[in-house]
Amino acid sequence: MKFELTILGSSSATPIFNRNPTSQVLNINERLYMIDCAEGTQQQMLRYDVKGSRIDHIFISHLHGDHYLGLVGLLSSMHLNGRTKPLAIYGPPHLKEIIYLQLTYSETTLQYPMEFVSIDAEKATVILDNHDVTVETIPLFHGIPCTGFLFREKKRLRKLLKEKLERLKIPVEYFSALKKGADYTATDGTVLKNDTLTVDSDTPKSYAYCSDTMYNEAYFEQISNVTLLYHEATFLNNMLERAVETQHTTALQAGEIALKTNAKKLIIGHFSARYKTLSELLDEAKSVFPETELATEGKTFVI
Amino acid sequence: MKFELTILGSSSATPIFNRNPTSQVLNINERLYMIDCAEGTQQQMLRYDVKGSRIDHIFISHLHGDHYLGLVGLLSSMHLNGRTKPLAIYGPPHLKEIIYLQLTYSETTLQYPMEFVSIDAEKATVILDNHDVTVETIPLFHGIPCTGFLFREKKRLRKLLKEKLERLKIPVEYFSALKKGADYTATDGTVLKNDTLTVDSDTPKSYAYCSDTMYNEAYFEQISNVTLLYHEATFLNNMLERAVETQHTTALQAGEIALKTNAKKLIIGHFSARYKTLSELLDEAKSVFPETELATEGKTFVI
Repeated sequence: MKFELTILGSSSATPIFNRNPTSQVLNINERLYMIDCAEGTQQQMLRYDVKGSRIDHIFISHLHGDHYLGLVGLLSSMHLNGRTKPLAIYGPPHLKEIIYLQLTYSETTLQYPMEFVSIDAEKATVILDNHDVTVETIPLFHGIPCTGFLFREKKRLRKLLKEKLERLKIPVEYFSALKKGADYTATDGTVLKNDTLTVDSDTPKSYAYCSDTMYNEAYFEQISNVTLLYHEATFLNNMLERAVETQHTTALQAGEIALKTNAKKLIIGHFSARYKTLSELLDEAKSVFPETELATEGKTFVI
Repeated sequence: MKFELTILGSSSATPIFNRNPTSQVLNINERLYMIDCAEGTQQQMLRYDVKGSRIDHIFISHLHGDHYLGLVGLLSSMHLNGRTKPLAIYGPPHLKEIIYLQLTYSETTLQYPMEFVSIDAEKATVILDNHDVTVETIPLFHGIPCTGFLFREKKRLRKLLKEKLERLKIPVEYFSALKKGADYTATDGTVLKNDTLTVDSDTPKSYAYCSDTMYNEAYFEQISNVTLLYHEATFLNNMLERAVETQHTTALQAGEIALKTNAKKLIIGHFSARYKTLSELLDEAKSVFPETELATEGKTFVI
């Protein structure tokens, strides 16, 4: 099953040329899930060929502008482009008020149903559970209510050993039961054990998105053992004091978090505009967690 | 006196790659006046080297997102970048509510004084009058309250004929009075008429910004004889019906408006995303008003 993350923006609040504030798109089984939607996200979608019509769920972490100011424009464009299928938005309760105030004063009545799911930033909650994935909130520590999002792929059905099934002439109508783990009883009464006809599906993958937050072990257990961890790394560790003051994380801390939570891979982002190049941030995180990459614009990570 | 317009965005609501929705910056005597502030305006400012610290006045025409969704991000960046000098915002009354709602929920208390001037879209009103310029609103016709803005340069003082003044040994302390039009009386009682010592200053320039609106002669008299007219031209005239329906103007109509109002020069913008190239729009406007140019990203018009 496809499980791919594309980065649309990697910068923090003050603008910098050629970097965009935060937005990401997760492709799970060809359905797109948008995570944060900063100003300029629509231009980034055009740049990296991300179709708004394929997005059915948008998750907003918190109400700092660099994480949501592109949302109302995107909702409006979806409307102007003739969208009719539903869209679900998950975010802090006040986001609903912000959206509707702007739609009201522009006299826009969306042509598509929009469902708004209010997030309680205080406790981890499953906010979406569908055929492919569950999404739960990760309470973070950032001054104003802020959550990350943990995407856990659903365990798939067992995979059929097609050639063997053909050789044994097992009828197609049994395949569905086999995928679910049933043994096969032939017409002569012979029982073939399921694990001789199928193999287990891949281990479900997981993606934890942690932005913005200061270092706090409270969420470490929840995100432990993920396949891919995105963690903000706004500053180098020589600005730790500033990171604490503004409730952000340093690249060194991001590496430590990946190590302590046993992530398989770490990507870092939300870089301060003071860093014109990012290699020092990457090196710092890699010094504790070598499996680190920069979550920069246009990169796609196959999870 | 410098009077220069730089285009930051030329597109209408639905996004298109390499064009940005509406924003412009007018440089009058080295002070910057921003007109509309669509999403992505900050990136455009970085691209074309427009410093936010030089902008003291921002004018918002109406509350469709493609004219103001970049504003809260810009206000926030000015705050994060340490601005302390005042900023004035002129716009529809509800814009104030939209701004403060978003600042409130992001727990941002601006470090600089922000003055909000509510615009009554029903009648032309002078909303700014300073040493260099007056700005008046132009009531437009666009479904929701919408105004253009008419910038009129102030008449400058008379220019001294420096060489002649030196030759006649007229003391410097009289220069200020001469600039204001006074005659000069020498110590021997001889009166030298002012127009033998000075020349009139340049004719004041003017800039009318008309976006968004349907064709309506009601505002023609107000904008007559401007040095530069910006008029929206969302569609080609073969989409006149759609233009009327969405309360926009065609390129042909924009040309006619420039002709009827005796503009010295016309620039057109707010192009629909359906036009990948703009030459047809330009040709159409030029067919009635040859002195037309496209108001595309990064162009600067010296008025």
